[in-house]
Amino acid sequence: MLSEFDLIKQYFTRRDRIDASGRTVLGVGDDCALLAPTPGMQLAVSSDMLVEGRHFLAGADPFALGHKSLAVNLSDLAAMGAAPLGFTLALALPGAEPAWLDGFSRGLFALADLHACELVGGDTTKGPLNICITVFGELAPGTALRRDAARAGDDLWISGTLGDARLALADALGELALGDADRQVAAPRLHAPTPRVALGRLLAEGRLAHAALDISDGLVGDLGHILTASKVGAVLDVDALPAGPALLRQSPELRRRFTAAGGDDYELCFTAPAENRAAILAAGTQSGTPVTRVGRIEATPGLRLVDADGAPLELKLRGWDHFA
Amino acid sequence: MLSEFDLIKQYFTRRDRIDASGRTVLGVGDDCALLAPTPGMQLAVSSDMLVEGRHFLAGADPFALGHKSLAVNLSDLAAMGAAPLGFTLALALPGAEPAWLDGFSRGLFALADLHACELVGGDTTKGPLNICITVFGELAPGTALRRDAARAGDDLWISGTLGDARLALADALGELALGDADRQVAAPRLHAPTPRVALGRLLAEGRLAHAALDISDGLVGDLGHILTASKVGAVLDVDALPAGPALLRQSPELRRRFTAAGGDDYELCFTAPAENRAAILAAGTQSGTPVTRVGRIEATPGLRLVDADGAPLELKLRGWDHFA
Repeated sequence: MLSEFDLIKQYFTRRDRIDASGRTVLGVGDDCALLAPTPGMQLAVSSDMLVEGRHFLAGADPFALGHKSLAVNLSDLAAMGAAPLGFTLALALPGAEPAWLDGFSRGLFALADLHACELVGGDTTKGPLNICITVFGELAPGTALRRDAARAGDDLWISGTLGDARLALADALGELALGDADRQVAAPRLHAPTPRVALGRLLAEGRLAHAALDISDGLVGDLGHILTASKVGAVLDVDALPAGPALLRQSPELRRRFTAAGGDDYELCFTAPAENRAAILAAGTQSGTPVTRVGRIEATPGLRLVDADGAPLELKLRGWDHFA
Repeated sequence: MLSEFDLIKQYFTRRDRIDASGRTVLGVGDDCALLAPTPGMQLAVSSDMLVEGRHFLAGADPFALGHKSLAVNLSDLAAMGAAPLGFTLALALPGAEPAWLDGFSRGLFALADLHACELVGGDTTKGPLNICITVFGELAPGTALRRDAARAGDDLWISGTLGDARLALADALGELALGDADRQVAAPRLHAPTPRVALGRLLAEGRLAHAALDISDGLVGDLGHILTASKVGAVLDVDALPAGPALLRQSPELRRRFTAAGGDDYELCFTAPAENRAAILAAGTQSGTPVTRVGRIEATPGLRLVDADGAPLELKLRGWDHFA
């Protein structure tokens, strides 16, 4: 059995890594990590905790789980428009399984390297499987994409596509059965989401968007947080929501339900003035992330769902509540 | 049953709080918290994860648990010499129990307020009880008390007293039975440790100490990390170790064992040049934290335990390994 110190050394310490940016002064192995943030920048911080049986199924592929654990945190930085700096990892494990640790750490570092986001410290302990990552990023003062910044008249935008993650979950749970081709398309959306870091940074640095968040618990519920914080309402064209390629082959009713209230999408939902439309489309192109206009912010509180003809739509939808 | 959002709002959002320092730009409730670190300062970061049955017993008093969860993190800042800035809390709970949440949040905030360390964000989810806190502090470049900075000839120092936390654990586990008076003295050392933040800051800001760490897994094991990182050895006078007042009334053998390798002490172990002795005693007085010289750092690798007469001592001691 690996000791705690061997475990950290073998799987989570990379002595061959040089931090080219010089931002990590001291990494894994002391009481604290030391970072050197860029003077004058603000620090963005987010924590997410993933629990087996709640955020992922028992027996989940460790490589994908390593990726996803960091991805959901990077997605929070993306939603704020922050540039990733580094992260800590706290890990409770039932045991120190080399095969699991090897896969998990490879998945984690593959995504971390893509975003030049260094693992700077953390904790390991024995316990029911629990993965807690805290991520740090930085941004210039006044550029953060806050939930309380939406204004009446803003366009409502969505990045990428929605619903394929929820479709893959339905398949995994036996709620429906996907064909092999659709499963191969949808499953990665559930297990290995892509944080929209480049798009978020362009939106913030260019001051193109007002409010933003990442869609983790379903669009309708998450959008509600923007509306509440900003004290505004919105009209959402449900039929304009960009469905994932696998979901596109399902019934219109399922398409509406899984795009509007699927969950695990990790796309950005953001609001922006109409005069920035061309610049936002260009930011989408530059970041390799499709962006779609799906509604508008209004002064009247509440969320009004409409269909392609603008007719009111009654959908029984709700966000995900961990304690409901 | 409380919803996740009500839970955060009711127990972990304090809208009446004004951050007088202006360091917290945006707190709980967005994708990320935003902090404004002092330009030119380095950021110290640490994460600790506490698991029921591992770090605390089932049924532990929630107020004490709230205190301890933050205390062990602040202790890491103290060991680095950093000034607390803020922290995130990620919490997995079997259910949303109002009595538990009320006690836990009160214990947490009582200690946070003592150190002007603001809760800036986090996560809550359903799952086996798990408390993960990530704490942020700051310090001037070059002042951090690193584990790799001990030098041959340094004095070896301990803050406060050792062993009463381990004695309280022995009592709780039925390994021995304390009288009521001793239990009342020892139990708070286990359940509500005092992070030595003020002392750590004085040692760092005054450049009084070279290396430091906080003693969480037992002095002998933890001191080994300094020796390994600094490529030095040490002589430790076991009989000079300052035993807690309850442990002082136990046998000499138990006193040696629980001071040298108890665990859960959360005192600082630090090394410093002999010429700083008077300044270090003054820092102890100024911070209200007793400090005791217990040995010295030597060039020869290894840890040599000696008794009050300087004779070699063979003790069967070992640090705590979560996966042993």
